[in-house]
Amino acid sequence: MKNTSLCYIENEGNFLMLHRIKKKNDINKDKWVGIGGKFEYGETPEECMKREVYEETGLIIKNYRYCGIVTFVSDIWGTEYMHLFTSDKFEGDIHECDEGMLEWVKKENVKNLSIWEGDKVFLKLMADKIPFFSLKLVYVGEKLTECILNGKAIKTDLNNMK
Amino acid sequence: MKNTSLCYIENEGNFLMLHRIKKKNDINKDKWVGIGGKFEYGETPEECMKREVYEETGLIIKNYRYCGIVTFVSDIWGTEYMHLFTSDKFEGDIHECDEGMLEWVKKENVKNLSIWEGDKVFLKLMADKIPFFSLKLVYVGEKLTECILNGKAIKTDLNNMK
Repeated sequence: MKNTSLCYIENEGNFLMLHRIKKKNDINKDKWVGIGGKFEYGETPEECMKREVYEETGLIIKNYRYCGIVTFVSDIWGTEYMHLFTSDKFEGDIHECDEGMLEWVKKENVKNLSIWEGDKVFLKLMADKIPFFSLKLVYVGEKLTECILNGKAIKTDLNNMK
Repeated sequence: MKNTSLCYIENEGNFLMLHRIKKKNDINKDKWVGIGGKFEYGETPEECMKREVYEETGLIIKNYRYCGIVTFVSDIWGTEYMHLFTSDKFEGDIHECDEGMLEWVKKENVKNLSIWEGDKVFLKLMADKIPFFSLKLVYVGEKLTECILNGKAIKTDLNNMK
């Protein structure tokens, strides 16, 4: 069981995405994700998020929205509680990242990148500004087999997701 | 590090409180708390909350409000991430609890029971229906030394808290 934070940083219609091609044995190997990582001792979700963003990008987060919690259940990776944020106010200059390549990607193009199936679900919830949500995503391998929003199973027509 | 859920069940101006007098080596020994416990494998915060309420009280939660997350940092007990809920709709009959004595307590009297100092802070936030919050409570022994709400330190005049 682990706790993590993930932030989607917005600027002029883009998200700052990390293409994770540098780390070996990475659960997200070759995938595109937002910026984040594991809680360190005593950190709140937002403290973890701000530290990870600073370490991985050099940016200082000036405001944020705490969007929800995603419970990932996997037959391979164990359970992860991911605290999800967006930010559209930040300072500083982007530096290179040890864990992959950083790139601004038009929001509408993110779904066409190599991302986890379930990421499309929470990106849609975030885009729709759904109030704080608890989303459970169950994976068998890389296949999303179950998707439960605030305690209720939802069908995800991923082809129609924007 | 552990993840837990805690629920304050409401009925006719009362909270269902658990007086934890039965378990040895209990972090909450002799204190009054809501109903809850640790996440089991693969559970979301709300799944854990519903299971714990059913196990400890026999009640089935029919609706709930997910109020916030409390990050407890302690020099003795390690860090705990407590997911906080209230419910005012439930079914079933209350049975005895292995972990203590269950009692309906007038909401305004809860602050006069033997509770953790910081509990008064989040009970106030819940009563005021503050939107989903992240609260950090730092303890040295039983003394609350720091209190941070959504990333900002707050002063708590506990004597004036209702």
